[in-house]
Amino acid sequence: MTYRAPVADIAFTLKHAAGLKAALAEGLYGDLDEETVDSVIAEAGRYATEVIAPLNQVGDKFGTPFKDGHVTTPPGWKEAYTDWAAAGWNGLASPSDWGGQGLPQALNAACIEMWNSASMAFGIGPVLTMAAIDALHAYGSEALKKQYLGKLISGEWMGTMQLTEPQAGSDVGALRSKAERAGDGTYRVTGSKIFITYGEHDLTDNIIHFVLARLPDALPGTKGISLFLIPKIMPDGSRNDVRAHSVEHKLGIHASPTCTMVYGDHGGAKGFLIGEENKGMACMFTMMNRARLAVGLQGVGIAERATQQALAYARERKQGAAGAIIAYPDVKRMLLTMRGLTGAARAICYATGIAIDRSLRAKTDAARKAAHERASLLTPVAKAFSTDIGIEVASLGVQVHGGMGYIEETGAAQHFRDARIATIYEGTNGIQALDLVARKVPLEGGDYTMDHMALVYLMDKEGRFVAPFNIKRAPEASAEELRRYF
Amino acid sequence: MTYRAPVADIAFTLKHAAGLKAALAEGLYGDLDEETVDSVIAEAGRYATEVIAPLNQVGDKFGTPFKDGHVTTPPGWKEAYTDWAAAGWNGLASPSDWGGQGLPQALNAACIEMWNSASMAFGIGPVLTMAAIDALHAYGSEALKKQYLGKLISGEWMGTMQLTEPQAGSDVGALRSKAERAGDGTYRVTGSKIFITYGEHDLTDNIIHFVLARLPDALPGTKGISLFLIPKIMPDGSRNDVRAHSVEHKLGIHASPTCTMVYGDHGGAKGFLIGEENKGMACMFTMMNRARLAVGLQGVGIAERATQQALAYARERKQGAAGAIIAYPDVKRMLLTMRGLTGAARAICYATGIAIDRSLRAKTDAARKAAHERASLLTPVAKAFSTDIGIEVASLGVQVHGGMGYIEETGAAQHFRDARIATIYEGTNGIQALDLVARKVPLEGGDYTMDHMALVYLMDKEGRFVAPFNIKRAPEASAEELRRYF
Repeated sequence: MTYRAPVADIAFTLKHAAGLKAALAEGLYGDLDEETVDSVIAEAGRYATEVIAPLNQVGDKFGTPFKDGHVTTPPGWKEAYTDWAAAGWNGLASPSDWGGQGLPQALNAACIEMWNSASMAFGIGPVLTMAAIDALHAYGSEALKKQYLGKLISGEWMGTMQLTEPQAGSDVGALRSKAERAGDGTYRVTGSKIFITYGEHDLTDNIIHFVLARLPDALPGTKGISLFLIPKIMPDGSRNDVRAHSVEHKLGIHASPTCTMVYGDHGGAKGFLIGEENKGMACMFTMMNRARLAVGLQGVGIAERATQQALAYARERKQGAAGAIIAYPDVKRMLLTMRGLTGAARAICYATGIAIDRSLRAKTDAARKAAHERASLLTPVAKAFSTDIGIEVASLGVQVHGGMGYIEETGAAQHFRDARIATIYEGTNGIQALDLVARKVPLEGGDYTMDHMALVYLMDKEGRFVAPFNIKRAPEASAEELRRYF
Repeated sequence: MTYRAPVADIAFTLKHAAGLKAALAEGLYGDLDEETVDSVIAEAGRYATEVIAPLNQVGDKFGTPFKDGHVTTPPGWKEAYTDWAAAGWNGLASPSDWGGQGLPQALNAACIEMWNSASMAFGIGPVLTMAAIDALHAYGSEALKKQYLGKLISGEWMGTMQLTEPQAGSDVGALRSKAERAGDGTYRVTGSKIFITYGEHDLTDNIIHFVLARLPDALPGTKGISLFLIPKIMPDGSRNDVRAHSVEHKLGIHASPTCTMVYGDHGGAKGFLIGEENKGMACMFTMMNRARLAVGLQGVGIAERATQQALAYARERKQGAAGAIIAYPDVKRMLLTMRGLTGAARAICYATGIAIDRSLRAKTDAARKAAHERASLLTPVAKAFSTDIGIEVASLGVQVHGGMGYIEETGAAQHFRDARIATIYEGTNGIQALDLVARKVPLEGGDYTMDHMALVYLMDKEGRFVAPFNIKRAPEASAEELRRYF
C-alpha cells in the first residue's frame, strides 16, 4: 500500500476552510485563477504519488551511509530530487524576479504536505532550502542574492539552517561558534554544529549553509548572534573549510542525513554576513517561521499517509462475522479519529499559509500588519497541533493494523517512527507553547486571539470549538464540492 | 543511563494501594510476612537492575538472527536467563508441590514489572512460560504434569502460547491448524502459526508449545478448538515435527524472537491434549488472562524505565537561565504526568494480582468467586490502561530528551519502539474494551463494577475519580512509608 495524494480534500480545505477562494476573488494573487490552483495541486499530487512515495521505504532501509566526509543518499533519490527541482517545485512560492513562480505560500503549503506524505525524509530537505531562500531574499545583500538566490530557488543547490550546538538547543543564545572579521568584508567562522538536517549529501553539487555564530565583541545571549552564509563550494570552485564529521543514527526519517558539522579545520570557513552584525536572530526567525509551518505540514502529511494506509488495511483485512475489520465500531472510531485530526491540522496549516500570503500581498499596510500578526499567532499552533496529532494518528495507524502494524515490512511502523521527530525539531512543542502564550496572545483584554481562532473555523466567537469543515461556514463551496468532500 | 528498580515505590503500592498488607494481616498467605515480601522485592530489584537491564540495548541492536531453523539470542542473554531461572524467579508464584515457591501472584506481578522495566524483550519470554504453567496445572493430566510441569516451573524449559494464524488474529475461532487422533491417545498436529513469541530460541534445551488446533469432527468457531501440548524435543530425545520457518523484523522488542511455526513437514507433530477435546478455549483463557496482566505490567515497566531515564536527563541537561531543564514548568509537567500515569497503572496491575490471589486462596467459595469476578473485571483494565499509558509515557520520555531523544544511542527511542507492541498483543486494547463492556460489566443495575473500582482507589462510591495513592485511603501506611513514597 502506498500513498495517493488526496487532491480533492486538499483543494477543498485550501479553498473553503483556509480561505483561498475568497482571497482569489478579491484579487490578492493578481490574475491567478482557481483552475491554475487545481492543476498545480493535481500535478504535485501526481509527482508525490508516482515518484516520491515509492522511495519512502527504500530510504528508510538504506539510510544515508557516511564515509570519509561523504553522505550517500538512497538509490533513486538523486534522480527524484533533480527531476522535482527541474519541474520548478522548489521555487513554487519564491519571488518571480529571481526565477521563482511567485505562487501563493498557501498553495506551496499544500504541496509541502504532499511531498512529506510521500516521504518525510525527502520533504524536509527542500523545506530548509525554502526557508533559507526567504531569509536571503529578505536580508541578503544584492551581491549575495545574485550569487546564490537563483540556484537556491531552482533547487540546483540546497540550503541548510544551522543553529544547534551541543550546549545550545532550545537556548540558542548559548551558542559558541565564532566569526572573525577577515578585513575584506567577509568573515572566518570556526566551531561546530549538531543535528544539521541535510548538512551533507550528494543530491546537489553545492550546499549553502546558513550558520549562526558570534563575533568577538558580541554581547552574550541572543543579542550577540549573527547569521552567515557559508557555501560548501566557493564561487571559484574551491572547497570551503567546512565538513560533516558524522551522521546520526535516528529513530526515523532515516534517509534525511542529520549531520555534525565542523568549521575551521584550516583556520575558518569563509562566511558572508546576512543582514547586520548581531542581528542574526531576526533573520533566523524569518527562516524558522517558514520552517515551523512546514514541520506542521509534515505532521499533516504523515497523518494523511498513516490514515490512508490504515483505511486500506481495514478494508482488506477480514476477521470474524462482520467481514472486513472496517465494519467494527472500534476500528471505525480509530479511522474517523485519524481522519478528523488530519483534516483539522490541514486546515490550520493552510490558514497559516493564507495569512502569510496576506502579510506579503495585502494592499494596505494595516492589512499586511494584521495578517502578519495572524500568521505569527497561527504558526506555533500549526506546528505544535499538527505534529502532536501526527504522532497520535500514526500510532492509531499501527493499532488498526494489529500485529501486522508492528512488523516493519508493513510500513505503518515507519510512519510512527518518522512522525516522532516533528514535535521536537524547529522548536519543541513546549517552545511553541511558550511562543504562543508569551509572545502572541495579548494578555491585556481584547479579543484579538479569539477573532483569529474563529477565522480558522476552530472556535466560534463565543469560544466554543467547532468542526473545521462546518458547512455553514464555507458557504461559497458548491454542492458538487461538498458532495465530493464529505 | 540505565534502570534502577524503584523498590520503595513498588513495595508501597503493593502493600497500600493494592492491599497486600491487609491480605497478609488476615492470613491470606499463611505465615508469609512483610519482611519476606520486602526481601523478595529487593532481590528481584537487584537482579533486574544489575543483570538484566544492561542487556536491554545489546538485545535491541543484536536482535535474534535466524538461520537454518535456529534462532540465536543476543550475547549474554542465555547466561542471564539461566541464572535467573536457577534463582527460582520463574516459579515464584507457582505451586510449591511442583517445585514452585507458592508466593503471591501480586508479588510476582511486582517482579514481572521489574523484569520488563529491565528489558521488555527479556521479560516477555517467561511471561508465556508462566501462563503455560497455569494452564497445564489447571487442566493437564497427571502424566503430563509429571513430565513437564517441574521443568517449566524451574525454567529449565520454556513454554509458548500459539493461537494466531494468518487468517485468525482477534478472531481465534477462524483457526485452521488440524489435529488428528493418532489412536494411542496422542494426536498429530499439522498447520502453521504466526507471531509466536519465543517460538524458537537457544535459551533452553527444550521448548514446550501450547497450540490450539481443530479436530476433524469439531464444530466451527471457538467451540471446536482443542489445546495441545507439543514439545519441541520428545521425552526420548527425538525431534518433534515442528520448526520455526522465519523470524519477524519488528519495530521493537528486537531480542524477542517472533516466529512463524510450521507443524507437520513429516506427517504431523506429536501432541498431547490438555483438558477436554473442543474445550481448548477455556484452557487458553486461563493462560491468556495471566498473560494479559503480565502485558499490562510490561506497560508499567516500560513507563517506569522511560520516566527514570527522562528524569535523569532532565536533571543533567542544562539549558538557559534556569540551569537544568527540570526547572522548567513544561518539563516538570511532562515528568509529573509520566510519574502519575505510571503509578496509577502500577496500582491497577498489582490490585489485579491481589484479586487473583484471593480467587485462589480465600477461605470461602463465595469469597473466591467474588475475587475471581473482581480479577476478571480488572484484567482488561490493567492490560489496556497500562499499555496505553506505556506508549504515552515513553513518547513523553522522548520529548523530554529533545533532539537527543530521537538519536537511537540515547535509549529513549527504544522504549518508545518497545512500548508500542503492548497495546496490540494478548488481545488488542479494542478487544480488552469489548471484554470489559460485553462480559464483565453487569448491564442490569447493581453497583458491582462501581464497588470494585472503588476498591482500587480509582473511583469513589459516587463515581468520582480519585488518585490511586490517596493517603486517607491507605491508613495502614506508616508515616515513614508515606514520607519515603511522597
